[in-house]
Amino acid sequence: MEESQRPGDAFDPGCPTRTVLDRIGDKWSVLVVLSLLDGPRRFTQLRDRIGGVTPKVLTHTLRGMEHDGLLVRTVFAEVPPRVEYELTPLGRSLREPIQAVADWAEANVRTVMAARAARDATS
Amino acid sequence: MEESQRPGDAFDPGCPTRTVLDRIGDKWSVLVVLSLLDGPRRFTQLRDRIGGVTPKVLTHTLRGMEHDGLLVRTVFAEVPPRVEYELTPLGRSLREPIQAVADWAEANVRTVMAARAARDATS
Repeated sequence: MEESQRPGDAFDPGCPTRTVLDRIGDKWSVLVVLSLLDGPRRFTQLRDRIGGVTPKVLTHTLRGMEHDGLLVRTVFAEVPPRVEYELTPLGRSLREPIQAVADWAEANVRTVMAARAARDATS
Repeated sequence: MEESQRPGDAFDPGCPTRTVLDRIGDKWSVLVVLSLLDGPRRFTQLRDRIGGVTPKVLTHTLRGMEHDGLLVRTVFAEVPPRVEYELTPLGRSLREPIQAVADWAEANVRTVMAARAARDATS
């Protein structure tokens, strides 16, 4: 594995790469990134797009992603104040890997469900 | 979004695609897949390769992946019994998306850490 040039090593327990994996592997982060690929969105738009997410979980997800530099939160001085979330260039660079993971999940969900059902039937 | 041909929809809270995302987005699953790309491995080999993973968490991860049809567990009738874990074709098909996510995490860990430090310094 000629990977000595990489800044991180996911196999090293002391490397923060794992905390980055936790962030970008989280399904809510995946759905937020996919929802923001077309441009900025308001909280309510994200909540409506990502079916079933609670406001608390969505808030927590957005704060974490902002903290990690993946998105920016902009407050517009209107009445009532308008708040928009937008991917940073770093966040937008997640498009390819996250789309690949989501595509795999959507394409293979039936196969995985069949495997689960088969296992459950024999156990 | 011309995705009506997809079996799954990650945005639909009633679709099991989300449970598949949970499985393949989990950092331990990611590290197990990467560890098994070169062929079958024993439990102790996986534990040693994936630094810092506890036996309990590794066992839980392997069982979940087996349940989802991503790997098979083979017991060889030896004394003491030898147990090997190997990716199924479905599990091997995760190579590209999971490698993309891990590559992103390893390549961008410094940028994310800098963003975290900057946020922490101003809060």
